[in-house]
Amino acid sequence: MKKRHLLAPGPTQVLPEALLAMARPIIYHRGPEYEALLARVREGLKILFQTKNEVLLFTSSGTGGMEGAVVNTLSPGDRALVIRSGKFGERWGEICEAYGIQPRYIDVEWGRAVEPHLVAAALKADPSIKAVFATHSESSTGVLHDVEAIARIVRATPAILIVDAITSLGVVDLPMDAWEVDVVVGGSQKSLMIPPGLAFCGVSDKAWTVVERSRLPKFYFNFKAERKSLEKNQNAFTPAVSLVVALHESLAAIRAEGLPAVFARHDRLARATRAGVTALGLELFAERPTPALTAVTVPPGIEASAIVKTLRTAHGITISGGQTKVKGKIFRLAHLGYADESDVVVCLSALERTLNDLGYPCKLGEGVRAVQEVLSRAG
Amino acid sequence: MKKRHLLAPGPTQVLPEALLAMARPIIYHRGPEYEALLARVREGLKILFQTKNEVLLFTSSGTGGMEGAVVNTLSPGDRALVIRSGKFGERWGEICEAYGIQPRYIDVEWGRAVEPHLVAAALKADPSIKAVFATHSESSTGVLHDVEAIARIVRATPAILIVDAITSLGVVDLPMDAWEVDVVVGGSQKSLMIPPGLAFCGVSDKAWTVVERSRLPKFYFNFKAERKSLEKNQNAFTPAVSLVVALHESLAAIRAEGLPAVFARHDRLARATRAGVTALGLELFAERPTPALTAVTVPPGIEASAIVKTLRTAHGITISGGQTKVKGKIFRLAHLGYADESDVVVCLSALERTLNDLGYPCKLGEGVRAVQEVLSRAG
Repeated sequence: MKKRHLLAPGPTQVLPEALLAMARPIIYHRGPEYEALLARVREGLKILFQTKNEVLLFTSSGTGGMEGAVVNTLSPGDRALVIRSGKFGERWGEICEAYGIQPRYIDVEWGRAVEPHLVAAALKADPSIKAVFATHSESSTGVLHDVEAIARIVRATPAILIVDAITSLGVVDLPMDAWEVDVVVGGSQKSLMIPPGLAFCGVSDKAWTVVERSRLPKFYFNFKAERKSLEKNQNAFTPAVSLVVALHESLAAIRAEGLPAVFARHDRLARATRAGVTALGLELFAERPTPALTAVTVPPGIEASAIVKTLRTAHGITISGGQTKVKGKIFRLAHLGYADESDVVVCLSALERTLNDLGYPCKLGEGVRAVQEVLSRAG
Repeated sequence: MKKRHLLAPGPTQVLPEALLAMARPIIYHRGPEYEALLARVREGLKILFQTKNEVLLFTSSGTGGMEGAVVNTLSPGDRALVIRSGKFGERWGEICEAYGIQPRYIDVEWGRAVEPHLVAAALKADPSIKAVFATHSESSTGVLHDVEAIARIVRATPAILIVDAITSLGVVDLPMDAWEVDVVVGGSQKSLMIPPGLAFCGVSDKAWTVVERSRLPKFYFNFKAERKSLEKNQNAFTPAVSLVVALHESLAAIRAEGLPAVFARHDRLARATRAGVTALGLELFAERPTPALTAVTVPPGIEASAIVKTLRTAHGITISGGQTKVKGKIFRLAHLGYADESDVVVCLSALERTLNDLGYPCKLGEGVRAVQEVLSRAG
């Protein structure tokens, strides 16, 4: 018998209440029961996004929400500024290019955070830029970018700021109205503790004025159509009902814990994980680490794939390796969503044994000791 | 205590095995367990679609699959022929127009089936037409269109035939390879007996050659990207894992019952329902009724909304009223997916009492008697 622990950056472990809710008989999406549920979900999403505006809901992966953010705000030939510092930053560029947008890129070395003054310089150099695309928590590198500083720059210009917050929302503070972020894209399978299949888009007043003028083609990911439906507690197209039912449970859990406590928990688990891995002599890959996950540089002489495989087969733990450019160079330990101290302790204890088994000598217990010290201090 | 019966045309009742599968801890979509599951799902979908080709899988409602069928096969300014005979036929036209396609319409009175010779005439009149868009089972009117006859016409031309089979797939025979239908779009929340959130696209060899030339913009619903991923037992973007797990259960159930038996069951339930409602003196709305659902004309002097509401509140039964053009004129009793004889008996018994309560005199038991006679004859 071996318990299984899902510690990948998404999908994350699902809240038990959400799992059980999905096992109940399904309800009709055009009936009063669903409408009442959706009304509460709409309220919960506004709290999570820290916005007074409607948060749009699409049945898709987070990438669908990203596509929606592009096709609802821009027009053919528009210029955009795209910050590329990892796989998900690159995705913004790929979507823009697929739709005939002319992106200008700020390329940031993987593992580093963008310097916000570069955004200011790029906007000054080309005032025709209509939108800035950023990634809050870049899960391919484990970096948290300084969206607050970027927002301070963009809000003083006619451009809008569009942020992929898929792995940061509900993990770290992102008050979109207060910071004046214009479009915030979220996904269901991260901090929301439910399966993948729903994407969310928070949209500022400034962004809505731009949406009115957008001429890129769109149908399924249509912001105006979805807002109009949501205002009647409906969705424009048949929603993933069971996931919305699960979302209702997870939003209630987040409200009960309270956003500040949710953020503090993620910060505590992240600091404990970082302390644990550095105590084992490992190096962190991200210069400005996200509290969602910890990217660790693979030590010399060990295969990243062997670490991932040994953790899975010998310890029942699923983590992620690196993707594309950093494949083989890093591995990633997630601690977001339905994660608590026990997950970090189990993860580090198994990592110690795995590294030893693979020929990287580390003193058993040293990683866990460092974890314990952080958790103990955190009270 | 009142049991609830979901007899709307979608979402339909969910298979209990699928509900329970969704309540299990989630698995990682980039790990060996998911890959093995997806391999079996791919096989099951090929059986369901009766095709040798890959069936593409998207996390979206069925409409997303429809959008995918448009944007992967056409180029800006292309001409298309769209058969409009209900809300979902109209949707093909709306998607085409949103993407700058020039649709020519065959408008069919709601409740009637398209005459296939009109398709032949339209294609002859305009040989520049690149694609014909049809609806197999038009769930807004309850009509089953003769896709076999339409396919016989289209396959002799350079145009491709794209069929919305969202409510017909797994309900009535649609052998896409044998009939040479080029794109078949399905959805998860109908005969597949799982919640909404997955769309499927079967794609013929002829359609794949067209996909290579398509220049409409696309990113999330990209046929080539999804096929390439599926061949490695992956999805291009994070899939709705819990729905794929559920799909694995429902495809197994469909294989166990056998497609011919599944089709025979739907046909039997449809004939029983039609016999029941006509025995009550009601009229069928569809001239060529689909076995997925029965559209019934509301008798004079009764409000359609009162029928829907009374069934729900007094009998725990959810059915659908009419949409847009036929709102208030019809109501719709579904019998697809996880539906059997008991559903039809319960539905007709409650309908008898509802009609009587609303002042439409009908003899209690007459509808159920007619149902019983069909079911009994069917053995």
